[in-house]
Amino acid sequence: MRYAEYQIARTFLIRADHGAELISFIGKVARENDIKVATFTAIGALKSAKLGYYDQEKHEYREISINSSCELANCLGNISLKDGQPFVHAHAVLADENGDAKAGHLVEGIVFAVEVFLQELKGSKLERQPDGVTGLALWEL
Amino acid sequence: MRYAEYQIARTFLIRADHGAELISFIGKVARENDIKVATFTAIGALKSAKLGYYDQEKHEYREISINSSCELANCLGNISLKDGQPFVHAHAVLADENGDAKAGHLVEGIVFAVEVFLQELKGSKLERQPDGVTGLALWEL
Amino acid sequence: MRYAEYQIARTFLIRADHGAELISFIGKVARENDIKVATFTAIGALKSAKLGYYDQEKHEYREISINSSCELANCLGNISLKDGQPFVHAHAVLADENGDAKAGHLVEGIVFAVEVFLQELKGSKLERQPDGVTGLALWEL
Repeated sequence: MRYAEYQIARTFLIRADHGAELISFIGKVARENDIKVATFTAIGALKSAKLGYYDQEKHEYREISINSSCELANCLGNISLKDGQPFVHAHAVLADENGDAKAGHLVEGIVFAVEVFLQELKGSKLERQPDGVTGLALWEL
Repeated sequence: MRYAEYQIARTFLIRADHGAELISFIGKVARENDIKVATFTAIGALKSAKLGYYDQEKHEYREISINSSCELANCLGNISLKDGQPFVHAHAVLADENGDAKAGHLVEGIVFAVEVFLQELKGSKLERQPDGVTGLALWEL
Repeated sequence: MRYAEYQIARTFLIRADHGAELISFIGKVARENDIKVATFTAIGALKSAKLGYYDQEKHEYREISINSSCELANCLGNISLKDGQPFVHAHAVLADENGDAKAGHLVEGIVFAVEVFLQELKGSKLERQPDGVTGLALWEL
């Protein structure tokens, strides 16, 4: 089993900038605050989004475009290092005007209004490395 | 960028009252324990619910009624002040008997059985104020 | 109202084993580390899954089989004791190649790649006991 113990360090409540792209925005907060490992949750609303679905056979992402405004019903993510830089990995559930849900890997989301709760973790270095079995960049633990 | 650093204070595990309305219930826990800033997650099952979708053009919520029992597949929320009082903001994903999902802002949810994990945060005052751009009450940070 | 205060103890980042069953895997991590109370979140992708919907009238679970690979868009869960042993309770939102979501109680999920953030809690004993009203095993608080 691969896991490591961390200590909770700084905790942030963040109001994402209206019009910003959420994944880049969280990455910017991480770089500005020298955050290397973290987990976060977010709720709010997006103007548009792109979700990803990973094809486990072909080892490639398919993109699903959401070209209308939607609720960000749920977003869970984490920050770790990839190529030495803070890398944001997030999944999300979006909902349209009828409450119908689309979900997946959050490739991009344009912020209407989003509230983020981010917890920095301190401990051993957490870096993503290519994994041959899945074709993904996974945590070296 | 607007964000503030908080310290994790008290942590609660809560079994919501059967038949209670979840948002009010969490507000009551907050008032009883003098909680002013917090984040929480919840899972369980609801007897019925109302979801909200925010119309980003008209600046008003549409309500989506779920008049049957459902799984509370996911609920993320936070507590901050609004008009000086603890205010609960939550989003949820609900699932019917076929696993089909409805999601959005959780306006109300009648508890069948719900488990809540709540983390109080200490730090600077966190108050919602009307935001002209979105028409929402957003965190002053 | 039924709730108890806990202290955050150890925090783990976990890379679930490829091919493992997620609920059992988290239970194994709990037993190996003598974890009796915890909350966790997870994101990733599953090879297949079984979701549950609790029939609130008949007091029984219906099972929903997902026989294809899917994104684990969201997973929230907790660990408490049941019959004296660590018991994992989790709910999940899954997404197919079109982003369409299925959600509910996570009965089982075969891991393609899953990242888990687990927070151990210390405090009074947390044990599930049969609840006559719902037919579920709920926290004694």
